[in-house]
Amino acid sequence: MRAITVSPGSAGSLRLADLPDPPPHEGSVLVEALAVGICGTDQEIIDGQYGEAPPDSDSLVIGHESLGRVIEDATGTLHPGDLVAGIVRHPDPVPCPNCAAGEWDMCRNGRYTEHGIKGLPGFARDRWRIEPAYAVPLDPTLAEVGVLLEPASVVAKAWDHIDRVGTRATWEPRTVLVTGAGPIGLLAALLAAQRGLDVHVLDRVTDGPKPGLVAALGATYHSVPVTEVGLEPDVVVECTGAPSVVLDAMCKAGPNGIVCLTGVSSGGRTIDFDAGALNRDMVLENNVVIGSVNANRRHWGQAAEALATADHDWLGSLITRRVPVADYASAYAHSASDIKVVLDFQR
Amino acid sequence: MRAITVSPGSAGSLRLADLPDPPPHEGSVLVEALAVGICGTDQEIIDGQYGEAPPDSDSLVIGHESLGRVIEDATGTLHPGDLVAGIVRHPDPVPCPNCAAGEWDMCRNGRYTEHGIKGLPGFARDRWRIEPAYAVPLDPTLAEVGVLLEPASVVAKAWDHIDRVGTRATWEPRTVLVTGAGPIGLLAALLAAQRGLDVHVLDRVTDGPKPGLVAALGATYHSVPVTEVGLEPDVVVECTGAPSVVLDAMCKAGPNGIVCLTGVSSGGRTIDFDAGALNRDMVLENNVVIGSVNANRRHWGQAAEALATADHDWLGSLITRRVPVADYASAYAHSASDIKVVLDFQR
Repeated sequence: MRAITVSPGSAGSLRLADLPDPPPHEGSVLVEALAVGICGTDQEIIDGQYGEAPPDSDSLVIGHESLGRVIEDATGTLHPGDLVAGIVRHPDPVPCPNCAAGEWDMCRNGRYTEHGIKGLPGFARDRWRIEPAYAVPLDPTLAEVGVLLEPASVVAKAWDHIDRVGTRATWEPRTVLVTGAGPIGLLAALLAAQRGLDVHVLDRVTDGPKPGLVAALGATYHSVPVTEVGLEPDVVVECTGAPSVVLDAMCKAGPNGIVCLTGVSSGGRTIDFDAGALNRDMVLENNVVIGSVNANRRHWGQAAEALATADHDWLGSLITRRVPVADYASAYAHSASDIKVVLDFQR
Repeated sequence: MRAITVSPGSAGSLRLADLPDPPPHEGSVLVEALAVGICGTDQEIIDGQYGEAPPDSDSLVIGHESLGRVIEDATGTLHPGDLVAGIVRHPDPVPCPNCAAGEWDMCRNGRYTEHGIKGLPGFARDRWRIEPAYAVPLDPTLAEVGVLLEPASVVAKAWDHIDRVGTRATWEPRTVLVTGAGPIGLLAALLAAQRGLDVHVLDRVTDGPKPGLVAALGATYHSVPVTEVGLEPDVVVECTGAPSVVLDAMCKAGPNGIVCLTGVSSGGRTIDFDAGALNRDMVLENNVVIGSVNANRRHWGQAAEALATADHDWLGSLITRRVPVADYASAYAHSASDIKVVLDFQR
């Protein structure tokens, strides 16, 4: 079968391989791949900066944003034809207290594995296997757009933690500012709109589909610096990872406000910054900044519900390119007009 | 009666005044002052940078860290001889949703008042009045040290929010680092020790009483930069407000860790800082930074319990000077060897 692989640590090792079907020990659910989404983590892996092959291999099948259709499940939990996505992270067999509680997104010892990223083969192959506990069923109407479930799960986790941190006291959020209108930012705005919040989305671009996608949510689009957005949001969801935007976002929330950081930036460059003013504001306004990564099964379920109830055409508009597997190299080449690029395993 | 007053906004206006007894409309509980603690906010008020007189006055009685003994309570709630402290912040008559819920420490609209700070006369006078809802009874054994209740309430609020934010997922904290061994830092360490945590306290000084006070809690004293403390704490309680310490503290917590900022710094100076690295760490480790200020009645009650069960000699050692009212000017002159300075209203 076709599979897209890298040799972790070697830049430029991305290739289309011919691999045997996944062995049964990889999970009782055999799945036919429909689509695999591509994100910045894939790019870091392709560049050789990140990624870890399974213990018995030098190469790693990449792809952690999955959508597939069940071929068979020996346990009978899932049924042939069911639409599923695979949960990315799995706890270590000797779990930390959080992993033992099913909160592998909050793993304390770093000994988790991740499909397509760290020690487990990914989903960019014609067929993959998984255990039912890590297969998330999707509404049958989501066959075209369910590949967005993984980024939506990350957003569901972020909102879950925002809600939980918010309820440290009386919490009636009304306004949210999302910085960055990429897939994570737009899905964060979707979940905010589903919560009935007054949603504002900020991005640099003024053309292309982003302003319209934001407007379609009933939200307001801003393409000015964060400091010039004329509101004091209760929540800021930071989705750019750009250091200067992150710092401005950290200063932007109103009293009792929550800033949730979801974008992974690279370090190594310094910025001149008034840390005393940030600290003073955070203390006197009881502000909170949350870092949030990954998602556990509960969040995947929340994300599946969010996608099922969203406008499917709107979700489809986030997928700006669907690339046949044979053209995989072009899928991984970033274009400024991309929102989400998807590898189409049916072609 | 004697009262210490300022003209808010006028530096150098601190004076010892002769004022009439507090009028009954200030509260049904009449209290004889025992002691008033002094902190950095008093210094800002004396310097004319902060503070607001009551609406009918040009001058403000200062003092927000109180201890007194009830003379009479027309409502019968409190009894003559009861040891009490006055809650600093009061909600506006038209409260915000948080104030309406008794969470005036989380006031959203800024229309609160504060004894000795903002619109309400302070406690630095021979007698003061308060309503029973804002009078916190203290254990009778705390007559010498109960003046520490206000800073302890700030610390109780900080720990309450750390606990509440921590329980967004499985939360079993073991190690805490407190930066700064002033009154807030030492009381934060006390409450951490009462929680059974492995407590570490960092401060610049290597002599004076601080190392011994930390050791007496069973805690470890460090006088190295934050980055050189060889542990990954679950919780960091930042009590210096010094911008470079704040930034290092924000990067110091281990996975799922919580950094609580309690020190109010002045802004206006910039630092060269790797914000990308901070963001990346916070996201990938699910770290949280909380700003925390003030306290509501629940926290004052928690603080009263914490003081009652603490070693009273240890608490007494935090009070490094007790200054008679006549020498008030020297009480407000900061000395490097001070931890907590208290005005003694019985002298």
